[in-house]
Amino acid sequence: MRNVTPDNITDVFTGYFGPETDPRFAEIMSALARHLHAFTKEVGLTHDEWRAGLKAVEWAGRITTPERNEFVLMSDVLGLSSLVDMINSHPGATSSSVLGPFHVSNAPPMAIGDDLRAGFAGEVVLVQGHVRDLDGKPIPHAELDIWQTAPNGLYSSQDPDQDIMSFHGLMTTDENGYYAFTTVRPVEYTVPTDGPVGQILDAAGRHPWRPSHLHFIIKAPGYRDLVTEVFPADDPYLDQDTVFGVREDLVMHYTPQPEGEFPDGFVLSGKVDGPWSRVDFDFRLVAC
Amino acid sequence: MRNVTPDNITDVFTGYFGPETDPRFAEIMSALARHLHAFTKEVGLTHDEWRAGLKAVEWAGRITTPERNEFVLMSDVLGLSSLVDMINSHPGATSSSVLGPFHVSNAPPMAIGDDLRAGFAGEVVLVQGHVRDLDGKPIPHAELDIWQTAPNGLYSSQDPDQDIMSFHGLMTTDENGYYAFTTVRPVEYTVPTDGPVGQILDAAGRHPWRPSHLHFIIKAPGYRDLVTEVFPADDPYLDQDTVFGVREDLVMHYTPQPEGEFPDGFVLSGKVDGPWSRVDFDFRLVAC
Ligand SMILES: [Fe+2]
Ligand SMILES: [Fe+2]
Repeated sequence: MRNVTPDNITDVFTGYFGPETDPRFAEIMSALARHLHAFTKEVGLTHDEWRAGLKAVEWAGRITTPERNEFVLMSDVLGLSSLVDMINSHPGATSSSVLGPFHVSNAPPMAIGDDLRAGFAGEVVLVQGHVRDLDGKPIPHAELDIWQTAPNGLYSSQDPDQDIMSFHGLMTTDENGYYAFTTVRPVEYTVPTDGPVGQILDAAGRHPWRPSHLHFIIKAPGYRDLVTEVFPADDPYLDQDTVFGVREDLVMHYTPQPEGEFPDGFVLSGKVDGPWSRVDFDFRLVAC
Repeated sequence: MRNVTPDNITDVFTGYFGPETDPRFAEIMSALARHLHAFTKEVGLTHDEWRAGLKAVEWAGRITTPERNEFVLMSDVLGLSSLVDMINSHPGATSSSVLGPFHVSNAPPMAIGDDLRAGFAGEVVLVQGHVRDLDGKPIPHAELDIWQTAPNGLYSSQDPDQDIMSFHGLMTTDENGYYAFTTVRPVEYTVPTDGPVGQILDAAGRHPWRPSHLHFIIKAPGYRDLVTEVFPADDPYLDQDTVFGVREDLVMHYTPQPEGEFPDGFVLSGKVDGPWSRVDFDFRLVAC
């Protein structure tokens, strides 16, 4: 097309696809171009604004490493990561939520009733529940990959004072689909603010905080993997998670328990004197 | 919002803006998020597809340097750069077109009638015309920053065998707004294909070629700067410029001229025996 115009550019773009193009690739790229063109026209993007956007992605490229991915974070704070999670969740299953950058492969196995803390002090939380299918039937031998921040707000990979496997563990449900472990409360933390995403949040008058949460990846043969997070109902950032990860069905409750009545069957049984609390949370997986 | 859904995520995003946010920033970011959310939902983007997109921008980040900007190229092949050029062009003025990565600052001054070639052989082309305002009135002392490929298809910055100022020059129009120089034809070339943009073009069944062109940046006091390119009508890629730079008013004609009738007033006058051709092209600038 020798006369490309703002009106025909999307059609010109689509017209350039070759006849052998994978239809799904063509569908995605056409829709992406159409929406980006519509955005550009709608706001009347200036050259200076276009350059500012390029500077942001160039900066993201300079600071992205295998350990820190500023592009994922950009997707997170734009709500894109959460949207992909949501549209790929099954409505009857537990919602998925952002994986985040702090997962560690090959976490140490934990028995049911083990303690996740690896030596950190704090009020004990007993977390327990079942992994079930969509009919509520327990799923035995489901694997839960669990991780969280230490009480200092840092994941093990961010904290030279923690072992890399601190607050990471792999648990398998029993014959009744039951899991249980003790830990201390994870805490709120901020996404990294020293890159372009920090500048975008700042310019938008947005805080960089996430509500505290426990991360889970749950896998069971015959079921779709579930990547999710669980958030306490009383967290101050529950209503404004900067990465849009909270869903109603992912809200849990820390229920205060009577002192001195810690149950049997836990590695901490007989060692918990002060106040403790309990979280009951069931997960539902969809068959694949 | 503790219950983010695919239906409300754009509103949740918009609701996070602080009261002090610059209205233009909020407008741009809201529209960007809305269009990216709509795109994601419309195509039902999967996690694998989302990750593939992230891999492409991560790769772009790794190979982007001050000399080679894969993000600009990505914007170019998506038609975004051209769209920004078009919506910021004045309808009565010469259309703007992509700057590209091969401009060099402080090109050497040329007198009217100078030769741009710096020693490359080839059929002579005489390029001439006027720089005018929207009423057709000539603009004296307008500055033309001119650059093009050598006949080997390379810009000076890509070619260790060329001086960095080869095929770059700065000319100022005379009292009548007139400019004129000689050169040889620039040639078609491909955008770089060894990065993610090359893979995208390949997957789309698109070629990486641009029609041959002369680049111009034209500046005159009281007028808006014009960044543009001029393309020959007979170029095989005129109808499918991979970066969407061609506009109808940017098409020029190489008109064959009688042998032995090369005009006076050029550094090549008296030295051109064989066939030569002429391009007449006027530029129109809008007052600012
Ligand atoms: Fe986290
Ligand atoms: Fe060029």
